[in-house]
Amino acid sequence: MNTQIKLASRPEAAPTHDTWSIETSPIPTPKEGEMLVKLLYLSLDPAMRGWIKDVPSYLPPVQIGEVMRALSIGKVVASNNGKFPVGTYLSGPGGAQQYTTINGRGWHPVDPSLVSLPVYTSTLGMPGMTAYFGLLDVGQPKEGETILVSGAAGAVGSVVGQIGKIKGCRVVGIAGGPEKCKYVVEELGFDACIDYKNEHVYKGIKKHCPDGVDVYFDNVGGQILDYALGNINFNGRVAICGAISQYNSVDMVGPKNYLALLVQRATMQGFVVIDYIPRYGEAAQEMAKWLMQGKLKSKEHIEEGIENFHETFMRLFSGEKRGKLVLKVGEDD
Amino acid sequence: MNTQIKLASRPEAAPTHDTWSIETSPIPTPKEGEMLVKLLYLSLDPAMRGWIKDVPSYLPPVQIGEVMRALSIGKVVASNNGKFPVGTYLSGPGGAQQYTTINGRGWHPVDPSLVSLPVYTSTLGMPGMTAYFGLLDVGQPKEGETILVSGAAGAVGSVVGQIGKIKGCRVVGIAGGPEKCKYVVEELGFDACIDYKNEHVYKGIKKHCPDGVDVYFDNVGGQILDYALGNINFNGRVAICGAISQYNSVDMVGPKNYLALLVQRATMQGFVVIDYIPRYGEAAQEMAKWLMQGKLKSKEHIEEGIENFHETFMRLFSGEKRGKLVLKVGEDD
Repeated sequence: MNTQIKLASRPEAAPTHDTWSIETSPIPTPKEGEMLVKLLYLSLDPAMRGWIKDVPSYLPPVQIGEVMRALSIGKVVASNNGKFPVGTYLSGPGGAQQYTTINGRGWHPVDPSLVSLPVYTSTLGMPGMTAYFGLLDVGQPKEGETILVSGAAGAVGSVVGQIGKIKGCRVVGIAGGPEKCKYVVEELGFDACIDYKNEHVYKGIKKHCPDGVDVYFDNVGGQILDYALGNINFNGRVAICGAISQYNSVDMVGPKNYLALLVQRATMQGFVVIDYIPRYGEAAQEMAKWLMQGKLKSKEHIEEGIENFHETFMRLFSGEKRGKLVLKVGEDD
Repeated sequence: MNTQIKLASRPEAAPTHDTWSIETSPIPTPKEGEMLVKLLYLSLDPAMRGWIKDVPSYLPPVQIGEVMRALSIGKVVASNNGKFPVGTYLSGPGGAQQYTTINGRGWHPVDPSLVSLPVYTSTLGMPGMTAYFGLLDVGQPKEGETILVSGAAGAVGSVVGQIGKIKGCRVVGIAGGPEKCKYVVEELGFDACIDYKNEHVYKGIKKHCPDGVDVYFDNVGGQILDYALGNINFNGRVAICGAISQYNSVDMVGPKNYLALLVQRATMQGFVVIDYIPRYGEAAQEMAKWLMQGKLKSKEHIEEGIENFHETFMRLFSGEKRGKLVLKVGEDD
């Protein structure tokens, strides 16, 4: 049988159990030209909160009654399509379910002998691509500059900081709690990490970025964005990747400090990683090389069981995770 | 005698009479290497509100007891300096007073036979330069694109829109009241103008910018910035020139809608015109040509009397003016 997570209602604020319905139906049969994919890992990403809002955005909203949109890693278990043979591991938009039939568009093969499968949802998946292009293309760091990154222990932030170090920058993270901060500095090699749960972030930035902030990579929005703007350097760049502090808010808070952009002749630019799909290959090749060389560490937080979708998803907002959040929904048998 | 307006106290919110002291002292005598300049016109600009805040910015704050900083047009009436002879008209930072002694640094001659003297505080002065570089360098409009500009009847906005038309764009203004809107469309040649005092600005943008907004030139901040962000196009540009709605606020309001930058891959960039000083000549030449050709209209709102400094300054915030606000403080005799 195939267990699916469907969107049951749109949450005003934080999602609840009522947001989803869990349904079970027979495993679908691939039609002519289709493949049956058994999903092994679902990628759980903050962007998913945006996909269930009924507002125009870069992708159409998931409709009530539809299977929740999710990126995934799966394996071809039956095929009426010559594109990928049975046994091929694939990455693509499988949705929050255990099986799906696909025609292959939007999917690409991944090699489990190179790195473990969950890494393809992480450093070699959307979060890694987001970090790579958001930092290098939008942030444009130069050697010796200071990069500040929020959500530093998360799937995107951890990669942003590591790439920043590879590029010869001073890198300061912001994360929640001493354990995450220790991980960010000692395991990931950031120069410093500010614990927003226990330190005053503005003072922390002043202390750890004595030459100011040249690039701020923002994953969180809210008050921390204001503190970063208050320390932005002349001609600084703010890359707006996300605003997880605001996603469950009914009333958005904007950056009060945005006139720092004027005083400092700075730029705040938004980006969405799917624009870079034509260049994913280039990034994946370079990041795979860094992974092999040990210059880049990839960490995944893996939970298990499609029935735990909601509880696992909510860890994105509570921060109870370390590294990329992944839900294992099938055995590779 | 020389009447001077000095900063007496820093206002929390809107400036009051107590913000200034009016003092009278003998006309200063130029020392060796100095000139005595009789000031004829003071330029009154929103930026001046920022200059009296005790926070680090692009210029040091005016100190309590100092003559208020102001750009001005004056005439050399005595000289111990070979740089500019007696009778030369000059533009420079004369301050809110009737006479000043200068060594000539930061001053440049202006020609009253080309355009009337107040135009040198306006279209051929800081507001014109702000419009020119803010629109062309930061906004980067392309022919056929839609430009939205707030403060459209003001010194900067009126020039932004006219340059936009010269460059082949659709130009929509936002201004307060039917009279200003009529002026913006009928005299300045904007395609449309939204009356924020009598229309819903969001709906007005939807109506008059049917293809969305490619460049938003922001002079006002606040709610109008959010409405503009809500209509920004893919790869749109927001040039942050000022935020007059916020300058007298104790609590700044930030743009709640800033995640539109992400959804639309748009850029919000701040700028300060003094960075373009090395290129003022280039802009002045082109703008003077447009003025001569009648493609660009310059309008100045002239009040009289140094003793009316405060009341005149406050017109910047009440909007009771049309065109560039100028205070005549001396006769050209």
